[in-house]
Amino acid sequence: MSAHRPPPGPVKFSSRLETGRALAEDVWSIFNVANLPADCINLGQGYMNFLPPEWVRTAAEEALKVVATNHYSHPKGRLRLREAIKKAYSPQLNRDLDVEKEILVTSGANEGQYSVFTAFLDKDDEVIMFEPFFDQYLPSVTFNDGKPVYVPLRPPANATGKFSSDDWKINPEELRAAITPRTKMIIVNTPHNPVGKVFTRAELELIADLAKEFNLLVMADEVYDRLVFDGKEHVRIANLPGMWERTVTVGSAGKGFAATGWRVGWLIGPEHIIRPTLAATTRIVFCSNSPLQEAAAVGLEEAEERGFFKKQLEEYTERRQVLTDCFDDLGIPYTNPEGSYFILLDISKVKFPEDYPFPESVLGRGRDFKACWFIAIEVGVSSIPVSEFYCIEHANIGEVYGRFAFCKDVDTLKRAAERFKKLKQYIV
Amino acid sequence: MSAHRPPPGPVKFSSRLETGRALAEDVWSIFNVANLPADCINLGQGYMNFLPPEWVRTAAEEALKVVATNHYSHPKGRLRLREAIKKAYSPQLNRDLDVEKEILVTSGANEGQYSVFTAFLDKDDEVIMFEPFFDQYLPSVTFNDGKPVYVPLRPPANATGKFSSDDWKINPEELRAAITPRTKMIIVNTPHNPVGKVFTRAELELIADLAKEFNLLVMADEVYDRLVFDGKEHVRIANLPGMWERTVTVGSAGKGFAATGWRVGWLIGPEHIIRPTLAATTRIVFCSNSPLQEAAAVGLEEAEERGFFKKQLEEYTERRQVLTDCFDDLGIPYTNPEGSYFILLDISKVKFPEDYPFPESVLGRGRDFKACWFIAIEVGVSSIPVSEFYCIEHANIGEVYGRFAFCKDVDTLKRAAERFKKLKQYIV
Repeated sequence: MSAHRPPPGPVKFSSRLETGRALAEDVWSIFNVANLPADCINLGQGYMNFLPPEWVRTAAEEALKVVATNHYSHPKGRLRLREAIKKAYSPQLNRDLDVEKEILVTSGANEGQYSVFTAFLDKDDEVIMFEPFFDQYLPSVTFNDGKPVYVPLRPPANATGKFSSDDWKINPEELRAAITPRTKMIIVNTPHNPVGKVFTRAELELIADLAKEFNLLVMADEVYDRLVFDGKEHVRIANLPGMWERTVTVGSAGKGFAATGWRVGWLIGPEHIIRPTLAATTRIVFCSNSPLQEAAAVGLEEAEERGFFKKQLEEYTERRQVLTDCFDDLGIPYTNPEGSYFILLDISKVKFPEDYPFPESVLGRGRDFKACWFIAIEVGVSSIPVSEFYCIEHANIGEVYGRFAFCKDVDTLKRAAERFKKLKQYIV
Repeated sequence: MSAHRPPPGPVKFSSRLETGRALAEDVWSIFNVANLPADCINLGQGYMNFLPPEWVRTAAEEALKVVATNHYSHPKGRLRLREAIKKAYSPQLNRDLDVEKEILVTSGANEGQYSVFTAFLDKDDEVIMFEPFFDQYLPSVTFNDGKPVYVPLRPPANATGKFSSDDWKINPEELRAAITPRTKMIIVNTPHNPVGKVFTRAELELIADLAKEFNLLVMADEVYDRLVFDGKEHVRIANLPGMWERTVTVGSAGKGFAATGWRVGWLIGPEHIIRPTLAATTRIVFCSNSPLQEAAAVGLEEAEERGFFKKQLEEYTERRQVLTDCFDDLGIPYTNPEGSYFILLDISKVKFPEDYPFPESVLGRGRDFKACWFIAIEVGVSSIPVSEFYCIEHANIGEVYGRFAFCKDVDTLKRAAERFKKLKQYIV
């Protein structure tokens, strides 16, 4: 059967890496701390600069002393964590969750979502995502042979100062028009990264009605579900009539307990979604790390009685305030987020010299790449240009904004606010 | 574009789940402790019943106290761990490894290997694996659109007692005949799970020559590299002439430091293999958990000066001895492993009543499933039937064996040995 002699040279990588911007220099590498001045304040990545709560870390230390919690967990996740997820989410999802069939622990929410795509996408199946989208969605879909379809959230026209993340709107006709016979899934990220939008019941009903009409799955990425401000109602699309059966809800210990490096997330849904996804994740990672699963279980078990989520939300509310006060003073438009920990600042009026010494990686990109770079160097605060979270046709919407993360301690944010005063001179 | 009305009912999962036995009840579920009597001694799964060394666990505890080691790591892995891997492996690979381009930390060796398949396989690309194969290879290849091609390791004919894992041989003609114009990769697992074989230099040269002749990648799964007994030489195929450029070597902190639940592994290879694999793993998991990466770094940094791997090898040598002494007494053939922590016992002469009350999950499978079940119930020691690690055409080779893991403390193994005396009465 053999006898061919292939050409020499490196073996070619898979054609799937030619999709989803997989080998391009991504925005995170360009705006990496390593490329910026050492004293630049990093509000770019959603990288917290504080510890997980001590009582949760103590639980991790305890788990490290026990044989079982140092070795393989069941691919479904440790039973204790699944029980804790059941206890935390059953009241929120208005059902008695089955820990064997309806809950799946994953190696971070990211790997959980990747596993859903692995489990459900066939060649050219389409996945609708709202722009700006969490940038991992795109390659995660294409790596699993799927095709992303983009529907933009549109900001208000002619905003002059602070406006609400709720003012970013879906156009219902655009959404319906995006559905084809190959559509398999809609991703609904609420609270939304990077807009901070918390989808309203009416908006979710619109999406739910289409999902039911066209028999679509919904991936409800709700990793910021503990970070909803100002008493806004966080509606779970899985709770809408007829939606449990077609929704997988995504959660994250990293976001909930300030432990983004623990890589513990979870999926909740009906057995016919969880079982194929279990088959996928079992092959992809086999299981998730055991000691930090155990600690996450303790986190969920004790959070309510310790008033942890309430206190954490107060802290994030204060952090948001430091930046919004500062942006109010600047007098340029920005999105006040109802959820998550990002603020989109309108950087379209930040003026920079055309001959500014931009690095090559920034030169070929949208205006926002230049503006964010300029602000990082001249003001000393880094951010992420938002056109990265759009497809090429819609990049002009994103080009207006820089994303600033406020998952930082108040002192750091106050130092950033102080520096932002310098930005005023560059605003035209 | 829309207007179709799809049939109601659950959304269909991906056709890739119809490959690689992905939804079948796997051997691990059938022979799970939950299905067996509570007092059954579990030598089935490679599940250690002892702790990682205290000084490595202490390093994990320390990492939990530091902000950075609780949050996202670089997708390449924490620099400290990459530096530690460089220090540990550079002498073994006879080169000064580049921590930025030639080392990649993954969420366990399993996810690392999955990422290599994602990075390199296109539709119907073929991957050669030697049977019996680590069972995750099969679905990991098919989920990434590849096609597994099987070449059996063949045990000696007419063995009557102890024989060496080295007596399991590749047939060079069979291997060459398996290569087609679509062959992209060969997986070489040495030390081998479940045979325990440590491939000789001559065997690896044979494989290397074919890899060079047909321009193939080699995935060298060497996760048991610290568990090679009796002074046998562990040859790394990456070190053979012309092989560095086409080999990715796989390592595991879980296997090396008795921490299988930490999910920290690594890949080492040339930039043109590591870079596409980084693009894959970045999308699959984004990054691996941070605190246990930091602890694994300390493990690699201090292992040599603490004499850890030498001491651990002595412990495993003693563990192996407990079982081999016991099997010598039984007087039935078995493979004495030169590496890893599994022994294949010939169970073909274990007689059981035809009307024994086997569960349904066992009835439809090979004779070894019945024999292993019978031994688990009647003798009280569980194992894994080896036909699971073969394709259907070659399953008869595997049907002769049960796999017993000796990654257990000596007391447990002695209790198992005591129970094995009971097996004698069932041998014909």
